Amino acid sequence: MRQKISIITLGVADLARSVAFYRDGLKWQTPYKDGEGIAWFPMGGIILALYPRGALAEDATVAPAGSGFTGFTLAHNCKNEAEVDAVLAEVAALGATVVKPAQQVFWGGYSGYFADRDGYLWEVAYNPASAFDEHDNIANI
Amino acid sequence: MRQKISIITLGVADLARSVAFYRDGLKWQTPYKDGEGIAWFPMGGIILALYPRGALAEDATVAPAGSGFTGFTLAHNCKNEAEVDAVLAEVAALGATVVKPAQQVFWGGYSGYFADRDGYLWEVAYNPASAFDEHDNIANI
Repeated sequence: MRQKISIITLGVADLARSVAFYRDGLKWQTPYKDGEGIAWFPMGGIILALYPRGALAEDATVAPAGSGFTGFTLAHNCKNEAEVDAVLAEVAALGATVVKPAQQVFWGGYSGYFADRDGYLWEVAYNPASAFDEHDNIANI
Repeated sequence: MRQKISIITLGVADLARSVAFYRDGLKWQTPYKDGEGIAWFPMGGIILALYPRGALAEDATVAPAGSGFTGFTLAHNCKNEAEVDAVLAEVAALGATVVKPAQQVFWGGYSGYFADRDGYLWEVAYNPASAFDEHDNIANI
């Protein structure tokens, strides 16, 4: 198995609502047209897909029920603390929930979390030790 | 908010067990040294992090309990059907569970799913309509 994640798919309760958040709210590019069954967002090396939650469970042949902590987080790394504050304000205005206000954290950075319209957790972080390459990827781990 | 996922973190029950699967089993590169608290895997544009589940929930300031379908899947896209079969055989030999055997699927591809040691779902898929760029990313969506 190659060291590669091609796609991350989030199972969503209401595809139109999720597209409204990520495409219309955040102005993310997508070829999605209203009424299509899945929305693809090119994220720079990985694709983010939004797909109805029940259909995703069915595709994986697992039961769709689930509750509580999903066990995973996505992180959006920023270039400075002000960008962290701005992103959390932006998503809150679009209907996301700020779960953890931005704050200094134990590893030396500045970070907060929001939950998207389905509750998926995004960390928004500035790590002063991180560098970014020309593709906006973290260059040093 | 830039159109970017920097990191995906999976909360794991036993970090050593998960590292054994992804690093020792799949031979994925990581700077992780045994005993460290988090394992980072560069995935080509995005970083995969493995971190203890309870600590991840604590970092996000959410309750750690959760059960059932996590709502998301990761996809590993292959170059042909034989690679799909080979990957599913490889991960099964490493202790993963093949949840959906590889099969022809409705969108014209060939796909199966496995659950890693913590139950996180990976789709392993061949999409004959997909092209890959020089960074092993899907080039056309």
